[in-house]
Amino acid sequence: MHDYQSHPLYGLMHPRSIAFWGASHNAMNMGSVQLTQLLAYGYEGTVYPMHPSEKEIQGRKAYARAADLPETPDLAIFILPTKVVPEILEECGQAGVKNAIIVTAGFGEIDADGRKVQDGLVRTAQKYGMRFIGPNCIGVVNSHLKLNTTFFPYDASTGFIGMASQSGSFITQMFTHLAKFGLGFSQALSVGNEAMTDLADCVEYLGQCPDTKVIALYVETIRRGREFFEVAKEVSRTKPIVAYYVGGSSAGKRAALSHTGALAGPDPLYEGIFRQCGIVRARTIEDLFDFCWVLGASPLPSGNGLAVLTHSGGPGAAAADAADRNGLALTDFSAKTVERLSGYLPHTASTANPVDVTFSRNPSDYSQVLPGILLDDDRVHSLFMYLLMPVHRVVQSIRDMGGDPEKAEEMALDYIKSQCGPVAGLSRAHGKPLVGASFCDRHEPFIRVLQEMGVPVLPSPERAVRALAALVQYSSFRQNG
Amino acid sequence: MHDYQSHPLYGLMHPRSIAFWGASHNAMNMGSVQLTQLLAYGYEGTVYPMHPSEKEIQGRKAYARAADLPETPDLAIFILPTKVVPEILEECGQAGVKNAIIVTAGFGEIDADGRKVQDGLVRTAQKYGMRFIGPNCIGVVNSHLKLNTTFFPYDASTGFIGMASQSGSFITQMFTHLAKFGLGFSQALSVGNEAMTDLADCVEYLGQCPDTKVIALYVETIRRGREFFEVAKEVSRTKPIVAYYVGGSSAGKRAALSHTGALAGPDPLYEGIFRQCGIVRARTIEDLFDFCWVLGASPLPSGNGLAVLTHSGGPGAAAADAADRNGLALTDFSAKTVERLSGYLPHTASTANPVDVTFSRNPSDYSQVLPGILLDDDRVHSLFMYLLMPVHRVVQSIRDMGGDPEKAEEMALDYIKSQCGPVAGLSRAHGKPLVGASFCDRHEPFIRVLQEMGVPVLPSPERAVRALAALVQYSSFRQNG
Repeated sequence: MHDYQSHPLYGLMHPRSIAFWGASHNAMNMGSVQLTQLLAYGYEGTVYPMHPSEKEIQGRKAYARAADLPETPDLAIFILPTKVVPEILEECGQAGVKNAIIVTAGFGEIDADGRKVQDGLVRTAQKYGMRFIGPNCIGVVNSHLKLNTTFFPYDASTGFIGMASQSGSFITQMFTHLAKFGLGFSQALSVGNEAMTDLADCVEYLGQCPDTKVIALYVETIRRGREFFEVAKEVSRTKPIVAYYVGGSSAGKRAALSHTGALAGPDPLYEGIFRQCGIVRARTIEDLFDFCWVLGASPLPSGNGLAVLTHSGGPGAAAADAADRNGLALTDFSAKTVERLSGYLPHTASTANPVDVTFSRNPSDYSQVLPGILLDDDRVHSLFMYLLMPVHRVVQSIRDMGGDPEKAEEMALDYIKSQCGPVAGLSRAHGKPLVGASFCDRHEPFIRVLQEMGVPVLPSPERAVRALAALVQYSSFRQNG
Repeated sequence: MHDYQSHPLYGLMHPRSIAFWGASHNAMNMGSVQLTQLLAYGYEGTVYPMHPSEKEIQGRKAYARAADLPETPDLAIFILPTKVVPEILEECGQAGVKNAIIVTAGFGEIDADGRKVQDGLVRTAQKYGMRFIGPNCIGVVNSHLKLNTTFFPYDASTGFIGMASQSGSFITQMFTHLAKFGLGFSQALSVGNEAMTDLADCVEYLGQCPDTKVIALYVETIRRGREFFEVAKEVSRTKPIVAYYVGGSSAGKRAALSHTGALAGPDPLYEGIFRQCGIVRARTIEDLFDFCWVLGASPLPSGNGLAVLTHSGGPGAAAADAADRNGLALTDFSAKTVERLSGYLPHTASTANPVDVTFSRNPSDYSQVLPGILLDDDRVHSLFMYLLMPVHRVVQSIRDMGGDPEKAEEMALDYIKSQCGPVAGLSRAHGKPLVGASFCDRHEPFIRVLQEMGVPVLPSPERAVRALAALVQYSSFRQNG
């Protein structure tokens, strides 16, 4: 294994200067759009637009050839017509450029001729000691460097999810998806046709990345089975990997073939590889990121015992049912736990698991006392909480209690923070996972505050429980290999 | 079967006046909160607060007894201590009140004694020819009358989903969930302990409701199996029913028992009942409403042939894979379709299914021409489209083409509407379902506009495909019984 800064992908993901081919005075073309995004996100390195005839592009001096540049750029980006790519790559090699992103499509994914040209790109790169990613990819993101080479604005935050994807859309379209939950990519790589850089390389690289707590993979095929297996198994020992594989059905296989020329394998084969490597498999794109969220944010549970805490019967029953179907056990509580719980519950409530308080006489019982009692129980390895603390209710309560109406919003936010803080602290204090669910989204302050404090709050009980089950599966791999 | 206006639940769901027990000068208690919501939503009937001693509540004259009221109210609502409920119900019966909602808990769900008191409520109601819903329920919603008797603000729109639920939270917490998609309830009933009004009654009633296009059920148990079966089978012939059942696992069963005293049955039994009645089963709360959306908004497909149209390989492959796993067939296209498609696709694109255009030279090809060609094919029974038309891109394009920057936002919205209109028209014109997916939400105008035009656009390819599969399943029941 390479260490982080000497990894072949480190330079490509940490460029101090970029030569950019494909932007022009026509702001509508894809290259121009990608250059716009690169500049808009605030990348602090130097960007050199490259163009055979234009002298200035997007307010920056443009250069005709790599050799004309005032320095050797760390990275070349190509959004060029297919037939031009080989000669420009050669030119970059001669100029000493060591890294390239080839966005251009029309190579190995099309036909045998395209494959030959693609093989030529690899030979050129090898001749000059270059590393490229693509072709037929969408680019990369390194949020900690404000580097976004894709055509889509990066509106998510910096985050702890590192991704390698055989679909560019499952990088770019995920910016919006992750932003819904206050999440973001640490780094993300669209690998395209994987001519020279494939998923195995990315897993190795992201495994070393200190900003990446969990690795997300979108997989249509695995091209180097043995290498992938060895790398993934090694990385999984210290960092979770979650994979979404779509090539396992006949329709998925056909779609993958036309998408990146991938020859997908039978589902049980991939299932077996994933299991042996300790890779957690997600069945949908939503699950992929739900799992990454909970795996990246949570301590490892020591078993599959789950406690469900709710003030609403339906969401509690939905969580319990999902737990059963996903291999989690709703543990019986110790006699001591039952006794402690009963002191805080109204007569309509249940001290069995799920603990349904129906309502709380004192709201901080729900946010602090009850979860603390449950997490104290040795049989409870993880805690699910159904959460609902809409700001309109808090504001109304403050007004009803005679609080200053002008300050009610601000007081409500303070109150919500005072309730969320203990919830967030409990998981850390007990070293056990705590995952919430609510049908509210980040427009509600209690969701935003909890998420900012590091508590995963998922949009439904079933999604939260499936993610907890993924965490338990990974934890079991870590314990038993 | 009763017809709509003579149905026993019609009066309860269409009150012109309400006597409300449980609100007081203490704005914090649950009854006061529910009264506040009832008034806030804009209910146009008369509301009489009832209280033994207070003279005015929330600015309205309060009455001590039902007999004191200036008229006989259509509906009584009780949010009272458990022990007081029997006498107040008796009082209402004597005063000629015909409908009641008993929110109060602490009856049959607690123990045998509670069950006896609950049975007494039923005898009282029967003695006076009254109908009540509950106890231990959260109330009802009739959005077309601006009637919301729950404690939670109804912030969704009027809509076509009629719901009956054994969990109050799966009524109230769904307001927010449905609002995310521009959906809403036509009417919704929280049935609680079902002492006198159960799911079978609600299915019969909602089956007649002209504002309800699809019925959603949250089920922990079915108390009157035969009646439910007969009613559901009859209603399914003309109106789809989607059910989410959580009592099938051992943990779900235990949770249901403590929640509403429900004795849940084994999963295969319920599965069989649902299948024979033509009820579509959902496995999560998100699926429940996704399915309702697509079933309520779409024409019935004549088979399971699906075409997938995408400009992004990954989401297309995800849709194809999900289709295969959910019983939909990615049909081969007719020779004529392939020929017609090829005239509009770039060389990097695929004319096989999924149709991946990679990019469109002319955006209206994607929103109009290509889906039209696919829907013309007899082998295509439904169409899935991956959708992405972010307003920032359109605004930028307009500016880049020299459009007036001041008017760019407005022009962008006009442009988006001009692209969305044809998409919405295609499904109607062809009499075939068209379901979209996008990772953007309703903050993006193209999502809002499409949804307002009646096109279901779901938050992921897999969810859209699962909902289409539910639609195909229901259509098959309608064709074959």
